[in-house]
Amino acid sequence: MNGAETLVHTLADSGIEICFGNPGTSEMHFVAALDREPRMRGVLCLFEAVAAGAADGYARMAAKPAATLLHLGPGFANAISFLHNARKAGQGIVNIVGDHARSHSRYAQAPLTSDIMAICGGVSDWLHQSRSPAEVAGDGARAVQAALRGRIATLVLPADCAWEAADAPAPPLPAILPGAVAPDRIEKIAAALKNGKRTLLLMRGRCLERAGMEAAGRIAHATGLRIAHDYFTPRITRGAGLPAIERIPYFSEQIVEALAGLEQIVLVGAPPPVTFFAYPDKPSWVTPEGCELLTLATPEEDSIQALTALAQALGAHAPGSLVPLVRPDIPANGALTSEAMGAIIARLMPQDVIWSDDSLTAGPGLQKFLVNAPAHDAIYLTGGAIGDAKPMAVGAALAAPGRKVIAVSGDGAAMYSLPSLWTMAREKLDVVTIICANRSYNILNIELGRVGAINPGPKTLSMLDLHNPELDFVKMAQGMGVEASRAETVEQFAAQFADAMQRKGPRLIEAVLQP
Amino acid sequence: MNGAETLVHTLADSGIEICFGNPGTSEMHFVAALDREPRMRGVLCLFEAVAAGAADGYARMAAKPAATLLHLGPGFANAISFLHNARKAGQGIVNIVGDHARSHSRYAQAPLTSDIMAICGGVSDWLHQSRSPAEVAGDGARAVQAALRGRIATLVLPADCAWEAADAPAPPLPAILPGAVAPDRIEKIAAALKNGKRTLLLMRGRCLERAGMEAAGRIAHATGLRIAHDYFTPRITRGAGLPAIERIPYFSEQIVEALAGLEQIVLVGAPPPVTFFAYPDKPSWVTPEGCELLTLATPEEDSIQALTALAQALGAHAPGSLVPLVRPDIPANGALTSEAMGAIIARLMPQDVIWSDDSLTAGPGLQKFLVNAPAHDAIYLTGGAIGDAKPMAVGAALAAPGRKVIAVSGDGAAMYSLPSLWTMAREKLDVVTIICANRSYNILNIELGRVGAINPGPKTLSMLDLHNPELDFVKMAQGMGVEASRAETVEQFAAQFADAMQRKGPRLIEAVLQP
Repeated sequence: MNGAETLVHTLADSGIEICFGNPGTSEMHFVAALDREPRMRGVLCLFEAVAAGAADGYARMAAKPAATLLHLGPGFANAISFLHNARKAGQGIVNIVGDHARSHSRYAQAPLTSDIMAICGGVSDWLHQSRSPAEVAGDGARAVQAALRGRIATLVLPADCAWEAADAPAPPLPAILPGAVAPDRIEKIAAALKNGKRTLLLMRGRCLERAGMEAAGRIAHATGLRIAHDYFTPRITRGAGLPAIERIPYFSEQIVEALAGLEQIVLVGAPPPVTFFAYPDKPSWVTPEGCELLTLATPEEDSIQALTALAQALGAHAPGSLVPLVRPDIPANGALTSEAMGAIIARLMPQDVIWSDDSLTAGPGLQKFLVNAPAHDAIYLTGGAIGDAKPMAVGAALAAPGRKVIAVSGDGAAMYSLPSLWTMAREKLDVVTIICANRSYNILNIELGRVGAINPGPKTLSMLDLHNPELDFVKMAQGMGVEASRAETVEQFAAQFADAMQRKGPRLIEAVLQP
Repeated sequence: MNGAETLVHTLADSGIEICFGNPGTSEMHFVAALDREPRMRGVLCLFEAVAAGAADGYARMAAKPAATLLHLGPGFANAISFLHNARKAGQGIVNIVGDHARSHSRYAQAPLTSDIMAICGGVSDWLHQSRSPAEVAGDGARAVQAALRGRIATLVLPADCAWEAADAPAPPLPAILPGAVAPDRIEKIAAALKNGKRTLLLMRGRCLERAGMEAAGRIAHATGLRIAHDYFTPRITRGAGLPAIERIPYFSEQIVEALAGLEQIVLVGAPPPVTFFAYPDKPSWVTPEGCELLTLATPEEDSIQALTALAQALGAHAPGSLVPLVRPDIPANGALTSEAMGAIIARLMPQDVIWSDDSLTAGPGLQKFLVNAPAHDAIYLTGGAIGDAKPMAVGAALAAPGRKVIAVSGDGAAMYSLPSLWTMAREKLDVVTIICANRSYNILNIELGRVGAINPGPKTLSMLDLHNPELDFVKMAQGMGVEASRAETVEQFAAQFADAMQRKGPRLIEAVLQP
């Protein structure tokens, strides 16, 4: 076995089942080793950011890491933005980066020689460069162990460590599981929930899946507290049959309003809430003055166990009221707005959809109706690197075959990851991509005034505007082998979306939104 | 004036005339400041890598830096790959990165909080984070000074340093010019050129523009030495009326063959030649054993002055033979190969084209005829981050209005920077993009055997294959507002290319290559 073969074998032994790759010359031995490992699937992505976003979406839905295969310095760099999103989401990924052979890295004049550890270091939680073929397998096992804890693990693999003879695969290392929350903390929080204060339970992480949501619903029913999640949450299972949950808004003044009057916030896997950006004369820290912050579970702890134990400690056994299913009427003859789209989607979407969403200004309109739609998992843009809805959808569809995936993206955002459409077509993924086409960086039109940049002139406005020429996502999608159509009216969107829900396979709808 | 206004004013005072931007919320004050600065043009790019590649292409043709405007951590990260290419090309760029306000960066839980200095540090030669609004203008002047020396200069601008009141613009700092080569080194090299050894003059940098090329031609004529440039050279002026120059090949065994028998290599702004990648049992260092390496000018020195002085010292005044213009016949009824394309292009291209090229396997076929084409400037992929031909063409067209730009890209490479087409359309740039569509990562099919990964199986081959589905660049280009057509035969390519040469404005030709 060569080093690459011991590595691929070790990754598979450690439970890695898929590798999203955009290989180059220095990764050829890893690619060849995939041929001899039936337990690991290779998925070609035509741009590294697509591979990273797909690994993120896969991890969110499979609750285990994928591998990526990236080409030394600039190739890894192309993946950083969506690795950043994954890192903010706490999703583990094993990045294999094929570096120059050890003997070649000394040549600064070789085009691809770079400060690879610096480039990888800016976004990796775990970073190591293999020093010999014999060490590669063990390095791989350690990378998987880090990724299983939700870390971005990057193994820089010199080409000669891949092609030279090595010994054998390395045994998998034990997963380091989230720590259980001790009974005294459960008791302390249970006591605090009986003090009569106006309380919010702020949740993030695995507790937003069904078991945690149901425990939170029982606690809310027993104590009267509110439950909420932050705006850009990694994953939430929500909709009909689950407890109602608030979404903390995006803009700072809306957050302040939503949190006003609270006397205590109990954090469950969530950090204290802050705004997305700073604005002149507005606070970043939005916990109301005098409101106490209590921690039930840190992001490193088992938030589902903590909530379940808390419900138990409170004697909270009754589920309380659950979200009713509402199938809204399709708006008649109205303008195609995000609210109209939300109504149509909520009317027509099946059970168990995966909703992958990087939309910004279209978000609230869609959200309004989705909360009462059939139960589904929503995965959101967590790190502000826009354009990851489509790549995440690629990974989510591969993690959860049989489930319909809907990727929702703004038109500006969609331009960051166009090649993801090709992988959807090649892998015949059941992903419906919806482009919310408002023909602008609409969020920036809003933010311009909010940051105090007033009276924008023509140069400013042109930097936010996506007209001239208009983007035609139908043609772009067709150019990558994805069936596509444009909806300019409510009727067209309803017909196209209904059709997409009836069939399987990749599909794109460009929804031209009215302001 | 606020900090952003003092910065934009300072950049303009320092000679920066253009800013390639992909802004976000934390850049809004910089964008607004552009409105009040008539000396600086803002060009919107829909992806940060396009902005970086455009700045690189601009610098290569304008011989001065452009600015980019990039959005904090992930936004900058998206630009790293093409900044890496620019850095390898020795092209200066001033990156302005709008960071969180200083008060906001402490919140690790804010989605866009990142280790921004680490992310920027991996590719920046000069890196600074402004500490107060009053310092922003001076920081900008220092960034320009670094970029004028060919450095990647990155100024991280906290949003509050942009929006708070500042004093005044800062005066431009003096450019640090390349040092002149002292007479004793000129004399030493002149003496060495009379020792009868078989000699190669290896050139890189500004000396490959007309003045340096002509000096090298006179030296070659007087001494009989060979002149050459490395395969991925930042810029070269070549073709009819200029001295003939060899291009060092791409593959190591071809390089070894090309350099065999040399007794001395004189480096003019070039490092010693090495291979692109390492391969098992092949050398990375390709200077023949016993061949002496002499340096006429380092990359930091004035290579044109050095060559001119050397020609003078040698009494080399006669130009010798210059490359004749050859307008090849258009191949009749043959398959559309890269050679056939090269013949057609060389027959039909006008004088003074800018040739922006990131093709790999199609390169030699095109090159064969271009060397005798009308004089043109060629700018090449220098750092191995594929896909920069289109973005560089954007910048080159803006640096040299009135000159036709031809961007040549492989199909795999072209997927890395698709949004560059939109900027070509918006800015109505006179760029003809040619996609060499061989439907595969063809270079990897070649490299696979060369690195010793033999007997590739179906998974390996599928990771290198771009069929299934086929990419349709005509539709993708049309989707971004660029007129496009597909050529599958020699006749079709000749007709489409002839038409493109007759008209102005953006245009794409997808050339479906026969193997």
